[in-house]
Amino acid sequence: MDVIATCDDNFLTEHRLPKGSMQLLNRTEADTLYAAMGPAREISGGSAANSMAGAAALGLKAAFVGQVAKDQLGEIFAHDMRSLGVRFETAPISGGPPTGRCLILVTPDAQRTMNTCPGASHELTVEALDPELIRSAAITFLEGYLWGPERPRVAMLEAARIAQSAGRTVAFTLSESLCIGDRREGVLGMIESSLVDVLFGNEDEVRHLTGCRGLAECLDALSPQVGTLVVTRGAAGAVAVDGPDRAEISAVAVERVVDTTGAGDLFAAGFLAGRCRGRELKASLETGALAAAEVISHFGARPEVDLRELVSL
Amino acid sequence: MDVIATCDDNFLTEHRLPKGSMQLLNRTEADTLYAAMGPAREISGGSAANSMAGAAALGLKAAFVGQVAKDQLGEIFAHDMRSLGVRFETAPISGGPPTGRCLILVTPDAQRTMNTCPGASHELTVEALDPELIRSAAITFLEGYLWGPERPRVAMLEAARIAQSAGRTVAFTLSESLCIGDRREGVLGMIESSLVDVLFGNEDEVRHLTGCRGLAECLDALSPQVGTLVVTRGAAGAVAVDGPDRAEISAVAVERVVDTTGAGDLFAAGFLAGRCRGRELKASLETGALAAAEVISHFGARPEVDLRELVSL
Repeated sequence: MDVIATCDDNFLTEHRLPKGSMQLLNRTEADTLYAAMGPAREISGGSAANSMAGAAALGLKAAFVGQVAKDQLGEIFAHDMRSLGVRFETAPISGGPPTGRCLILVTPDAQRTMNTCPGASHELTVEALDPELIRSAAITFLEGYLWGPERPRVAMLEAARIAQSAGRTVAFTLSESLCIGDRREGVLGMIESSLVDVLFGNEDEVRHLTGCRGLAECLDALSPQVGTLVVTRGAAGAVAVDGPDRAEISAVAVERVVDTTGAGDLFAAGFLAGRCRGRELKASLETGALAAAEVISHFGARPEVDLRELVSL
Repeated sequence: MDVIATCDDNFLTEHRLPKGSMQLLNRTEADTLYAAMGPAREISGGSAANSMAGAAALGLKAAFVGQVAKDQLGEIFAHDMRSLGVRFETAPISGGPPTGRCLILVTPDAQRTMNTCPGASHELTVEALDPELIRSAAITFLEGYLWGPERPRVAMLEAARIAQSAGRTVAFTLSESLCIGDRREGVLGMIESSLVDVLFGNEDEVRHLTGCRGLAECLDALSPQVGTLVVTRGAAGAVAVDGPDRAEISAVAVERVVDTTGAGDLFAAGFLAGRCRGRELKASLETGALAAAEVISHFGARPEVDLRELVSL
């Protein structure tokens, strides 16, 4: 669950939170920050969950595997997924940590600074996987945020292997350059072993991952290792490389950017929906950009309008 | 906690929910409706709580007395109150019903239809009152929604008596004409016994209460019995009668009305803040109208901008 409050730049400075970043908090740190935050609104979130909400809103058949606890926030999260038609069958856990929360601070420039108390989400294990479900899915989409803790990482790798053995597509989103640091080797290893068919990242993330400085170098370094590489560039648009095919778009104009949370998640959902529906590489980038533009025009990382109509899918 | 989702008119028809109304649901009914609702956002709510959030945002010193349970939604509610500087010391209850939820359905015309599962809120007892706090407050503000269940009604009457004995002002908001039905005698009795100094209601509510048809008749019937009578008229503005003093305003223009939840609550907060700060009757109505206009321009019944600046208090 996202707990979204606005704040000014001073609040971030006082609490030593680098603007635009994501940091993991323990319970005590989260409680302290929460007590200092202004009134908030609670909206379901989570990177891959946002993408699946978007995929469903775009008319795809979507399922989500992720761990919540048997508590009120877990019930709300499950409701919000299922009400969009997303299949969500991971049983909630009892007696462990509560459902994960992300304390999101949105500054007047619409940047979001995320402070995650992962709670139950890091308790996801390989036992939560339904191999039949994975084999039945055209795409298995994995998020980099869960690469850090061991259990979810093992579960994600197993899911990727099941999908690949069934001849399905594995997509991976790098999720936050700050997370990449000590996980770089592992993520690179997964990519080098050809486990990733579609890789999503923003410019910062691909730079951190490859160690290259320029975008062109990053694309050259990564694209031969993945079937499709998609790099989002915020207000500068996005670029994709798919074998010999290459496409670039500028960002969609947004009247007022309110909260950038979920931009990358919805971009990925739109891009994949475009590809699933047979759109060309460039048109799929444009589909992603439209979905991202919608989600940054309001608070929260879940679409608020009929996305399918918006992107004419 | 408000659980706010959008829906179309058909959804209301299918579920037999009269548009714009408030109905009480038991747990099973609430669970059924929730399962049928689309994805939602959770924002703290509650009529008097919204007014106190507004009062604090308007720079008044405010406290809230109301019952939540010791659960995640209760924690969120308490956080949202305290983060606005509202003193909130009612101890959460354990082992009883969970924190109250209101399932709010917002139609494209921005009307809200409220489906309340009152939970812990109806467990408020007279023991929750702090007589010192009440005696110290210039105004004790009571909400009609809690007039139905016996324990909160007894607590409200006791709070009114404590306030009156200390020479303080008692304000009462009628909250929903549909609630008035079987409570009419009791509310009228309280008004007739001069326990109410400031009475808030919308046109529908004062009609139901007085049994009069025209607004002028309603004003004539009620105003002699209360110090100040404030009747809100939606898009038609508002009118107030304070002894020989009478004022009327038109509504504040709103670029796009999104969700009318909380309009009356924030109107009351603005009006009382205006009066507390020495504004004239008409200027106080205008202060109320500005606060109401802000809250209907977005989802949720809590202000999202600096209200004090907005109304120049």
